[in-house]
Amino acid sequence: MTPEEIKEQIYAMGEQARKAALKLAVLSADKKNEILLAMSQALRSASAKIVSANALDITAGEEKGLGSALLDRLRLDEARVDAIATSIEKVAKLHDPVGEQLSQWQHPQGMEIEQVRVPIGVIGIIYESRPNVTSDAAVLCLKSGNATILRGGSEAIHSNRAIAEALQSGGETAGLPEGAIQLIPFTDRESVKVMAGMDKWLDLIIPRGGKGLIETVVSLARMPVIKHYDGICHTYVDSEANLSMAAKIVHNAKTHKPSVCNALETLLIHSSVAEEFLPQLVTLLDENAVEIRGDNTVLKILGDRAQAVIEEDWETEYLDYIMSVKVVNSVENAITHINTYGSGHSDCIVTENQETAQQFLTTVDAACVYHNVSTRFSDGEEFGFGAEIGISTDKLHARGPMALKELTSYQYRIRGNGDIR
Amino acid sequence: MTPEEIKEQIYAMGEQARKAALKLAVLSADKKNEILLAMSQALRSASAKIVSANALDITAGEEKGLGSALLDRLRLDEARVDAIATSIEKVAKLHDPVGEQLSQWQHPQGMEIEQVRVPIGVIGIIYESRPNVTSDAAVLCLKSGNATILRGGSEAIHSNRAIAEALQSGGETAGLPEGAIQLIPFTDRESVKVMAGMDKWLDLIIPRGGKGLIETVVSLARMPVIKHYDGICHTYVDSEANLSMAAKIVHNAKTHKPSVCNALETLLIHSSVAEEFLPQLVTLLDENAVEIRGDNTVLKILGDRAQAVIEEDWETEYLDYIMSVKVVNSVENAITHINTYGSGHSDCIVTENQETAQQFLTTVDAACVYHNVSTRFSDGEEFGFGAEIGISTDKLHARGPMALKELTSYQYRIRGNGDIR
Repeated sequence: MTPEEIKEQIYAMGEQARKAALKLAVLSADKKNEILLAMSQALRSASAKIVSANALDITAGEEKGLGSALLDRLRLDEARVDAIATSIEKVAKLHDPVGEQLSQWQHPQGMEIEQVRVPIGVIGIIYESRPNVTSDAAVLCLKSGNATILRGGSEAIHSNRAIAEALQSGGETAGLPEGAIQLIPFTDRESVKVMAGMDKWLDLIIPRGGKGLIETVVSLARMPVIKHYDGICHTYVDSEANLSMAAKIVHNAKTHKPSVCNALETLLIHSSVAEEFLPQLVTLLDENAVEIRGDNTVLKILGDRAQAVIEEDWETEYLDYIMSVKVVNSVENAITHINTYGSGHSDCIVTENQETAQQFLTTVDAACVYHNVSTRFSDGEEFGFGAEIGISTDKLHARGPMALKELTSYQYRIRGNGDIR
Repeated sequence: MTPEEIKEQIYAMGEQARKAALKLAVLSADKKNEILLAMSQALRSASAKIVSANALDITAGEEKGLGSALLDRLRLDEARVDAIATSIEKVAKLHDPVGEQLSQWQHPQGMEIEQVRVPIGVIGIIYESRPNVTSDAAVLCLKSGNATILRGGSEAIHSNRAIAEALQSGGETAGLPEGAIQLIPFTDRESVKVMAGMDKWLDLIIPRGGKGLIETVVSLARMPVIKHYDGICHTYVDSEANLSMAAKIVHNAKTHKPSVCNALETLLIHSSVAEEFLPQLVTLLDENAVEIRGDNTVLKILGDRAQAVIEEDWETEYLDYIMSVKVVNSVENAITHINTYGSGHSDCIVTENQETAQQFLTTVDAACVYHNVSTRFSDGEEFGFGAEIGISTDKLHARGPMALKELTSYQYRIRGNGDIR
């Protein structure tokens, strides 16, 4: 296809999505839930078809020489399709935020002003290899009353098409407006550029994938983009920390699931407790053979067990059994380090001193700040949101775990009786 | 200056602004108010100096052949400087939104999760000729705990420098962190490009000015931009409207202040009342010689009093004593027209039928929707916000009148007792 043909086709999808969004905005929660259950049912019925489509992607991926981790992310079997369908049913059970009254007051002239939660409109989702995102993202957007235009990666195109088709056709039997969930059926790179420029039809783009993808979208997009960048998460062990609690928290944050964005990457320790704390911690970390990259003080204390940290480490998201460690002289120095090198995701202080804790919580510029709690709790499920479209490292609109509420906007409704200025 | 020099200088300002923002974030409301009053005082003391600096801009503007309207916007005298200082004092009296608890709950394991309002960080303001924006924008950002980097237009550069200097030096005597309010001291076009790319230091850009300026910023910006685009506002007079109320509302919305974004541009009338309503309305509109551009039905009813509307009119923000008028057959058609041609700013229905009103309010996709009230009320002051940085036509983060709350973000603070996953 020529760039003009791609643009024409995607713009037509945009126009249709806008029409669908206006219809979705006024659907009742019950109707949306009925649609979601029909979609889940359709997905289960299409399971064999989806698994066959996925086999084409897997074969192509093997031929292209994709690594085993990537192939595993790409792979769908009946159990995984079933899990996707189950998660739709879970979303159907969540509270619908649309229509919620956010505030209400009276103008001195007597009119009632009401601020009400409404859907955003049309949301573009640009994602990479995982085909489950096709369903997970579309379903959360639908529950919050938004239409979606999905643009998945080329590796998963057959799987994505099969999933999107099941969702659409299943949903439409229950009243899903046409065009409410649309997948761009081709994967030309040009399509990302077209979506990024289509601010007439897209109110928001959420890129889900690696830094490269996010960077591309950010540099091209004319509409808001909510970014889910790295989690360079810190834990600071204060001079007044309960050291056995600190060891337990650091161990959990680093080793419970090192591949995720809320895992600990850098440990900061107050100089007065470093000597006592580090050997105690290492005993725990040895279980997972966590590599320690420390500053000179750390090297002095741990000898061969650590290696020398370099400047670059402080801004690295390892996502692995590796941890950088620095000894600091004060909570202020810890905070400065975090505000300089952190990614504003999740940071923790371990201390028994409430004042020091309060200073840390109010001064660290991150989405989630913790006192005596593992950073692993930065998660939509753990926050009780029931689902999660990601963890925003942005400060505008949505910060931290993002779920249904964060997929909405608001509107002012003003009722009067002939009022003029 | 070379582009490299410009970049280096503005990035240095950005780094300083970030440091200042971290300090501002923890200032008490009292401290910020003390700083604001010192700034107001300094502005009054520097009045003569500011007026002299402004004279340089006026002379340059006259030499450049700026029109009288532009020159008037640019002009400062002692009274206008006084008004700017007074508005700072008014902002000092507003409630500080920072630190407000937005929600609070308990994790099943017992930890307390708290969502707290915090400043955004560093906000870039890019604006055109009005020098009062230098103070108005910086002051609202400061009150909400944010640092600002200001980039005004070349026409007002001397005035802007004098105002910024007074604000900074006055504020610093009362404890304003260095770098909290910075004006880019030159007006090379390159500076806009540099700011738009500086997402490391700028969390948000707010362009204040015409469509051209906003377009430029939108196409270049890597960080969120909150846009204040046109107001193509509608009023729909329903078949069940109180027609004398409708005439009063339309007259007010069109003629009270036609140059502003909440003024009425397009009138929609139900066919069953058009013949009775239009002549009645015209009597009122004649006072201001409002030009009427109508469809065929309107032309039939009003004869020579109207001229023929063209397609382009429906998407034009006249900002003048001109109004386009269309006759529709149903509220649905009115809503479709508004959702097609409107700019999502402010739209009104006049009807005595509560159900029709509710349908309109919930289906029109605009920031402010009105029932029996003039659209002229879309305004931060009228909404009781005490001040306004603009009216957002975006749907993300801030929609409609934007004031202090909309200049904040939030943070989750989680307190526990050694909790791990």
